[in-house]
Amino acid sequence: MRQFKIEEPDRALADRLQNKIDNLTKPKGSLGRLEELALQVGLIQQTLTPRLTAPCNVVFAADHGIADEGVSLSPKEVTRQMISNFLSGGAGVNFLARQHGFSLQVVDAGVDFDFPPVEGLINRKIRKGTRNFLYEPAMTLEEMERAIEVGADVVTDCHRRGCNVISFGEMGIGNTSASSMWMTCLTGIPLHDCVGAGSGLDASGISHKERVLAEALQRYPGSSDVCEVMRYFGGYEMVMAVGGMLRAAELGMVVLVDGFIMTNCILAASKLYPAVLAYAVFGHQGDEAGHARVLRYLGAKPLLSLSLRLGEGTGAICAYPILASAVRMINEMNTFDNAQVTKYF
Amino acid sequence: MRQFKIEEPDRALADRLQNKIDNLTKPKGSLGRLEELALQVGLIQQTLTPRLTAPCNVVFAADHGIADEGVSLSPKEVTRQMISNFLSGGAGVNFLARQHGFSLQVVDAGVDFDFPPVEGLINRKIRKGTRNFLYEPAMTLEEMERAIEVGADVVTDCHRRGCNVISFGEMGIGNTSASSMWMTCLTGIPLHDCVGAGSGLDASGISHKERVLAEALQRYPGSSDVCEVMRYFGGYEMVMAVGGMLRAAELGMVVLVDGFIMTNCILAASKLYPAVLAYAVFGHQGDEAGHARVLRYLGAKPLLSLSLRLGEGTGAICAYPILASAVRMINEMNTFDNAQVTKYF
Repeated sequence: MRQFKIEEPDRALADRLQNKIDNLTKPKGSLGRLEELALQVGLIQQTLTPRLTAPCNVVFAADHGIADEGVSLSPKEVTRQMISNFLSGGAGVNFLARQHGFSLQVVDAGVDFDFPPVEGLINRKIRKGTRNFLYEPAMTLEEMERAIEVGADVVTDCHRRGCNVISFGEMGIGNTSASSMWMTCLTGIPLHDCVGAGSGLDASGISHKERVLAEALQRYPGSSDVCEVMRYFGGYEMVMAVGGMLRAAELGMVVLVDGFIMTNCILAASKLYPAVLAYAVFGHQGDEAGHARVLRYLGAKPLLSLSLRLGEGTGAICAYPILASAVRMINEMNTFDNAQVTKYF
Repeated sequence: MRQFKIEEPDRALADRLQNKIDNLTKPKGSLGRLEELALQVGLIQQTLTPRLTAPCNVVFAADHGIADEGVSLSPKEVTRQMISNFLSGGAGVNFLARQHGFSLQVVDAGVDFDFPPVEGLINRKIRKGTRNFLYEPAMTLEEMERAIEVGADVVTDCHRRGCNVISFGEMGIGNTSASSMWMTCLTGIPLHDCVGAGSGLDASGISHKERVLAEALQRYPGSSDVCEVMRYFGGYEMVMAVGGMLRAAELGMVVLVDGFIMTNCILAASKLYPAVLAYAVFGHQGDEAGHARVLRYLGAKPLLSLSLRLGEGTGAICAYPILASAVRMINEMNTFDNAQVTKYF
């Protein structure tokens, strides 16, 4: 499998960054999370004057064999229908991307539909949907390795266009099921605490979903090895996101993490390369059962908690202006010296 | 005292607004707080296509007699120094205003300094600081009524320039003390739970502050009547914000509420005119002890919790992009019908 060279940012600059932040005209620490973010981005970029350039949101879309088991409220066709909606600019992620100046990349990672060639859709289809992991591995080892590679390459392209801050989103009916399997296998948290309503199941729907996943877990012949887990439960869009996150960290980009599914992707990425977390900014904690738990496992403190559960990257992009505020803070605020304000601490 | 005509928005449009929101291409409710905000702003503006125009942040600045008792880490001179910092564009509120397109109004409500005429500073000084409420009322009844009037007039001016969404900030060494007094008197919550670190007191500083305020409370001869409380404990900048909030609601504007001090201002405003709360969007819950408590008292759910404690309107402006997202959502997203996506709920 493709190897990545990911190192924790050198902390030699940390004191100078903190000193700069502490000399801005405000009570020490009074800009809270903005100060933490400014330090993090300064370290990632190894500069006292960090910049965010050409932000990009990549939506990976794919179908899931497990959807055949009735684990989602939504029919499978919604995956492909939403692709058209993304391309026409009318989905949730679109207005947020426009608002915050994100370019949007829509990647067919493995949708169960033959699209005609269509402007704006990046065709990287591995297969028309994963296999049903209740009965067999969702993908082959070769497919998984290809998905990692493709995800990384998409990010390389974004980086070449000047992007240094990236978020990932997903569209894939059934992918909260795959995510719950990753979560339970990679963290050891009981399956029950990893399963939720997805796009809107009621209590009996959630019970059915949990029964199906419990059976799949029981039949799973593998280990908690991260590659084995990713491969067995899929999906293609999730593995591509893992590859994308790893490549982004390798390139020194800031990775904005979206909701439940993308949090499980960075969980998997961090099992391969723990240093990837130093590049991650967690955008949003949603209401999906299990999200708070996996965030806690990762020691992550999301910036927002707005009860979003749409995916597509919406929670990450919503948080972007806060990151942008942090960067403005460290570049634009006066210091006590040059503003002639008494430093009162 | 000036009277305001503030009514709850007519809810006749609520069903049509909710129906529009529910037919956007997303699982029902999956945009969480954005959906609630879209409904609220639609009702305030009485339209299915709400808009936010010419956002404005008004910073009221004033000094407090109680600062003489050593209740703040910061020396009083910081109030006037920060005025110059606001006007030069280098304070915390400035970069946020630039980022989110807010115009900034800086009002001298009662700073203890004679400013030379200076471009951009709106001189509405009531007096050079309030009196020390440990010994006497912070202001006279006439001064309080004038401050309400001035706050309202500043908002009228913003509205004339096309503003329909407004936030208020403050600068005033000593004003968390005044706010704690308002909070305990107007809610009945014990003083101890209303007092915090302000701009950065340590534990012994907080103890001293609480002792001073407890003594002031004991000596306070008045009642829990809101005007009496506002007048006795001040400050001018806070009373102006109350007047501004009431006028904004009267004009049908959205009021973005900042941190601890501004939350106590809308608390006071709501004691005069409960309907003002229908126009309020709470931006940020800070770490100041008591803030969570007064928010709970008001039934408010702030959009952000980023450990900001700077004031100036920073917590409100940071939250603005979320409000703007809500308005974009209802105007820009496709519906299930026009996007040909299966409505799956």
